[in-house]
Amino acid sequence: MEIKIGILTASDRASAGVYKDLSGQAIIDTLNDYLSSSWTEIYEVVPDTQESIENALIRMADKDGCCLIVTTGGTGPAKRDVTPEATESVCDKMMPGFGELMRQVSLKYVPTAILSRQTAGIRNKTLIINLPGKPKSIRECLDAVFPAVPYCIDLLEGPYIECNEEVIKPFRPKK
Amino acid sequence: MEIKIGILTASDRASAGVYKDLSGQAIIDTLNDYLSSSWTEIYEVVPDTQESIENALIRMADKDGCCLIVTTGGTGPAKRDVTPEATESVCDKMMPGFGELMRQVSLKYVPTAILSRQTAGIRNKTLIINLPGKPKSIRECLDAVFPAVPYCIDLLEGPYIECNEEVIKPFRPKK
Amino acid sequence: MEIKIGILTASDRASAGVYKDLSGQAIIDTLNDYLSSSWTEIYEVVPDTQESIENALIRMADKDGCCLIVTTGGTGPAKRDVTPEATESVCDKMMPGFGELMRQVSLKYVPTAILSRQTAGIRNKTLIINLPGKPKSIRECLDAVFPAVPYCIDLLEGPYIECNEEVIKPFRPKK
Repeated sequence: MEIKIGILTASDRASAGVYKDLSGQAIIDTLNDYLSSSWTEIYEVVPDTQESIENALIRMADKDGCCLIVTTGGTGPAKRDVTPEATESVCDKMMPGFGELMRQVSLKYVPTAILSRQTAGIRNKTLIINLPGKPKSIRECLDAVFPAVPYCIDLLEGPYIECNEEVIKPFRPKK
Repeated sequence: MEIKIGILTASDRASAGVYKDLSGQAIIDTLNDYLSSSWTEIYEVVPDTQESIENALIRMADKDGCCLIVTTGGTGPAKRDVTPEATESVCDKMMPGFGELMRQVSLKYVPTAILSRQTAGIRNKTLIINLPGKPKSIRECLDAVFPAVPYCIDLLEGPYIECNEEVIKPFRPKK
Repeated sequence: MEIKIGILTASDRASAGVYKDLSGQAIIDTLNDYLSSSWTEIYEVVPDTQESIENALIRMADKDGCCLIVTTGGTGPAKRDVTPEATESVCDKMMPGFGELMRQVSLKYVPTAILSRQTAGIRNKTLIINLPGKPKSIRECLDAVFPAVPYCIDLLEGPYIECNEEVIKPFRPKK
């Protein structure tokens, strides 16, 4: 089974070409570090509207068959921060543990971590995880939650993901 | 006031008799360890469908008059894991602190603790708590949250629960 | 831009004049400690019904133009504890990080902290935060979350709040 991973950047300015999307690139770099299995990236940059984020998530999950989608951007309290709402609206079930752990990790660095509304959820067989917007925080959050991701995708009957264990150690409980 | 506690196992295989329900038994054993008050168990095993779980929760709360229902099974990310959804759908109010604390405790043992979607809530005068599926994790989670349970049931105007304080220390704030 | 802050006490007994509202006063005292900017309090005591809490929140946000509303009372599991439901019903987006951190802080003092259903959210340009009912817990919770509040209000395009930094250190990330 092919491993396809969606990387979705929600950013008005990056999607308008006003600046380069460093966040999406940081996610791709991190996943290249983590995965020893070969994988295909489905990468998109969309403006900060709920509709465009929802449409991209649905496309990556249903049409492209991504087993995992990671988003960046749009998780703060500002008016155009609607990534968590878009995520919840396309998911069948929510995974509150991801947001809880990511906020807890970010709280070690900045007290404003509680302003992040990051969540995660499942649409059919696709795990969707919201990450923060800044490259440094992206890596901190992925380092915390990624060890649980390969087993989650096993449970969703997705492809078997193998990692560079000196970089990140995925955990699979013994039966 | 009689103390009735519902123990609900959601498991396709246990309800089909394919294997023995060790998880439900682990809950009963733990409650016998904890409680010095005498109590009556209302025990049921149902398949992993939202409807059968909801019906059992409603029956145990409304008909049997349980002050507390603890469930096991069906809290993961897989397709047939729907216990949190069934719980939320029968509850008047949700208690997010239970799931947060249980995930935090389980995270000390396994990074996949964030995949658990356990929650808790209240239906009228009944506290409903989702526990994990494995006997070892059940005990770890109950040890963490149970000290708050007797006072919660006081606030719901339920029976006064007394514990073996050398095993578990319930906390009741002074007025 | 004027700094208006709403303080809303939900309490049947305080609103009926049966006892003095010490909790609302504790919030006002704490904010006076924290803020070096001058600010105006909009203070109200209402009974524990969802409708009266919602109406007061809407009035303070939409009519009075408060950039921040802090509530006290009504966050427990009892029948008339409905402040989180009222908050969620008037908010456009929820901020789960506030409740998570407040419960975590309170857990250092009492295991019944998990019974608190405190949340926070945003209605248009107003941040609404639920605090516990007891003055001591109010201060513990505000000490934990307030460092993130001034920056949150910046992001909501509200007034620039300055603090007595020897009492509380607000955090604003460098651009």
